Amino acid sequence: MGEKHLVYMDHAATTFTKPEVFEAMLPFLKEHFGNPSSLYSIGREGREAVETSREKLSKALGARPEEIYFTSGGTESDNWAVKGTAFARQKKGKHIITTPIEHHAVLYPCEYLEAQGFDVTYLPVDEYGLVNPAEVEAAIRKDTVLISVMYANNEIGTLEPVPEIGEVAREHGIPFHTDAVQVIGKVPLDLQREHKDVDMLSLSSHKFYGPKGIGALYIREGTKIDNYMHGGAQEGGKRAGTENVAGIVGIGKAIELAAANIEEHNEKLRKMRARLMAGILEIPYCRLNGHPEKRLPGNLNFSFEYIEGESLLLMLDQMGICCSTGSACSSGSSEPSHVLRAIGIPPKTAQGTLRLTLGDANSEEDIDYVLEVLPEVVGKLRAISPFYKPESKCEK
Amino acid sequence: MGEKHLVYMDHAATTFTKPEVFEAMLPFLKEHFGNPSSLYSIGREGREAVETSREKLSKALGARPEEIYFTSGGTESDNWAVKGTAFARQKKGKHIITTPIEHHAVLYPCEYLEAQGFDVTYLPVDEYGLVNPAEVEAAIRKDTVLISVMYANNEIGTLEPVPEIGEVAREHGIPFHTDAVQVIGKVPLDLQREHKDVDMLSLSSHKFYGPKGIGALYIREGTKIDNYMHGGAQEGGKRAGTENVAGIVGIGKAIELAAANIEEHNEKLRKMRARLMAGILEIPYCRLNGHPEKRLPGNLNFSFEYIEGESLLLMLDQMGICCSTGSACSSGSSEPSHVLRAIGIPPKTAQGTLRLTLGDANSEEDIDYVLEVLPEVVGKLRAISPFYKPESKCEK
Repeated sequence: MGEKHLVYMDHAATTFTKPEVFEAMLPFLKEHFGNPSSLYSIGREGREAVETSREKLSKALGARPEEIYFTSGGTESDNWAVKGTAFARQKKGKHIITTPIEHHAVLYPCEYLEAQGFDVTYLPVDEYGLVNPAEVEAAIRKDTVLISVMYANNEIGTLEPVPEIGEVAREHGIPFHTDAVQVIGKVPLDLQREHKDVDMLSLSSHKFYGPKGIGALYIREGTKIDNYMHGGAQEGGKRAGTENVAGIVGIGKAIELAAANIEEHNEKLRKMRARLMAGILEIPYCRLNGHPEKRLPGNLNFSFEYIEGESLLLMLDQMGICCSTGSACSSGSSEPSHVLRAIGIPPKTAQGTLRLTLGDANSEEDIDYVLEVLPEVVGKLRAISPFYKPESKCEK
Repeated sequence: MGEKHLVYMDHAATTFTKPEVFEAMLPFLKEHFGNPSSLYSIGREGREAVETSREKLSKALGARPEEIYFTSGGTESDNWAVKGTAFARQKKGKHIITTPIEHHAVLYPCEYLEAQGFDVTYLPVDEYGLVNPAEVEAAIRKDTVLISVMYANNEIGTLEPVPEIGEVAREHGIPFHTDAVQVIGKVPLDLQREHKDVDMLSLSSHKFYGPKGIGALYIREGTKIDNYMHGGAQEGGKRAGTENVAGIVGIGKAIELAAANIEEHNEKLRKMRARLMAGILEIPYCRLNGHPEKRLPGNLNFSFEYIEGESLLLMLDQMGICCSTGSACSSGSSEPSHVLRAIGIPPKTAQGTLRLTLGDANSEEDIDYVLEVLPEVVGKLRAISPFYKPESKCEK
C-alpha cells in the first residue's frame, strides 16, 4: 500500500468520458460551431452530426430515428415522460401507477402531479425491490393514464420485469414509461422485440461513458405526450432549444461503443463483482441489498451494522476509494434512502450502506485493493462504536 | 475575390467557443469527471468548479451566487420563468403580460398556459419594436401574475426599456421576467442597481462565446416560482439533474471574458456596423428594420423588396457569407417572421429580410467583402424577379 491508489467504484453516479467519445466531440466544441437550425454550410455540419447521432441511438435501441429526442439528461427525460404524458391525457383520467423505489426524477414529478390533483399508486416491492407484474395489473383503474416503472434500480441494482409489465400495460392500452438510465450499455435493449411494449424510455449519456448534460427520451410513434420545452422548432417540433451539438455527438459515440461491446463488458464486470462480493460478505454483520441474480452486472450494495455510511465513505476516500452510500443525487442529505426503506431495511441498518458500482475504470487490482482496505476500515469504525459487539456472522 | 472567404455574420444565432473557454472546460471533459453530488475528492472538484462558475456569473450580473441557477440553455430558462411563475401564482390570478415580439421560448409557453386557462395580453409595439412602459401599466389587472418582456429582440436588435418596465412591475408588486439571451456581453447589467426591479433573467452561454447546452436563470431572492426539473437536490433543490460540469465551467469563463471587455467589444462592433449599414443602405429598395440607435451593437436587419430571403441566404452561403433571414430557431420554416409582422412590415417585404449580426469573428475586411458581394447578389436576384423595376431609392 506504499503507492497512491485511486479506485473509482461509483460508476452508477457517473462515468469518465471515453477518449474516443471526447475525440468525436472535439470538432463540435471548436471549429464546427454552427447552429444546426441555420441554413448555411457550417450550420449544416452540426445538423448532420445531430442526425447521425440520432441514428446511432436508434440503432442501439432498436428504435426509429424519429422516435429519439435529445434532452439535457435523464432528469429532463423523466420529467418530460411523466408530466408530459399526465398533462396530455388528463381529460381521460388522473391516475398514475409507479413504484416507491423510482429515482427522484420520477417520484418528485409524481408528487408535483399529486399537488395538481392527480392520484398516484406506489406499488409494493418485495425484499429485493422487485415489482410483481400481477400487482401492476391489479392497480390499473379506468382513469389510469400512465405506468412508470424503472428498468433497474440505481441504488440496489435490481432489474425489474420490464417486458412483463409492458405486456400488462399494452393489454390495457396504458402508456408505459421506463427509466433506463442505469441500464444502457449493460442490458441489450430492443424496442421492436422484447421491449415492444415500452412506449417511453429515459437515458442519460454520462452513465455510459459519454459527457454530462445530454440524454434522450425515446417516444414510440403514436404516443400522446405534451411538449415540455416550448420554443423553437428543434427535434421535430417536440423539444425546443438550440441543440447541444457536441453533447449529442458524444452520446452517439458513447452508445455506439457501449452497444458494440455489451456482452464482453458484462462478463468482465460480473467476474470482478463475484470476487468482490464474496470477499466483502466475509466481513461480519453485513448484508447484500437487492436481488442476488436479477441485478445490474456492476452493482453491489451492502449494509453494515454498527457503521455510519458517511464516515465509511470519507475514510475510504482517504484511502483513494470512491464509492457512495445511496444515490449521488441524495448524498449530502442524511435522510435514509427511500429505496432501502421500501425493501424493508431498518433505518439504523440502512445508515451503514455502501454502494460499489464497477465499470470500465476498474481492474482486478482494484478488487484486491478494496478487499484489503474495506475490512480494516469497517473494523476501525466499529471499534469506536459503543454498540458493536464482535460475535455474530454475516447474513447472506 | 480569388481566395476562399468565410465570413460569419450570424452571431445572434450562435457564436464560436473562445479558446480560453474551451481550455477551461477541458479538464472537466477528461480527468475531473466526478459527480458534483458525490462526497469524495473527485466529486468535490466538480462541485467547487460549479460554485466558482456561479460566482463568476453572479459577479458579472451584480447578483448573489445563490440567485443563479444553471439550466440547459435559454429555452429552459424561459420555460421555467414563465410556466414556473404562472403555476406558482395561479391561485392569485391567471393573467400574464408579454409582447408579440418575444422569442418562441416565451411565446409558446404562454400559448401552452392559455390552453390551461391563463389569459395573456400581448402588448402592442411601435414600428421599431419598442414597448411603451405606460402601456405595460395600463395592461395590469388585479389577476396579473407575471410580466415578461425581452431585453433585446433577437431579430431586429431593438433594446426595450427594461428598467422602466421593471419599475412599473415593482410598483404593482408583479414579478418581472426578461429574456436577456441576446444581451449578455453586450449590455452591462447590474441587478442591484439599474436592474433592481428585474426578478428573473434568462441567459444562454452559446450567445456569448461559451458552449451550447448550458444557460442560467437568475431568480431574485424571494421570488415565488415552482420547480421545473423535479428530482435530485442539485442547484439548492430548485433545479434537479446531474450538473453539466464542463458546460458550467465554460459559461463561467465566457461571462468573465465578456464582462471584462464589454465597452471595447461594443465600440469595435458599432464602428464596423456603421460602415456596413451605410454601405448596404446604398442598395435600392431596402429598409433597415428596428430602432436606428436603441439596438444591439452588432445587429443589422434589412428588408429588400423583390427578393426572396432564402435565395439570398443560399447565394451568400455560396460566397462564404453566413447570415440569417429571421432567427435561427424558426429558419427552415417559410412563415413570415412574427417580429416583422408585429412591427408592421408587409409579408411580401418581410420575405426579403436579411439579418447580419457582427461579433468577435469579424474584422473590417469582412465588412469590405460583404459590401462587395451583397449588392451584386441582390442585383442578380432582382434581375430574375418579374416584379422588379429599377427606379426607386432606398428608404432610410
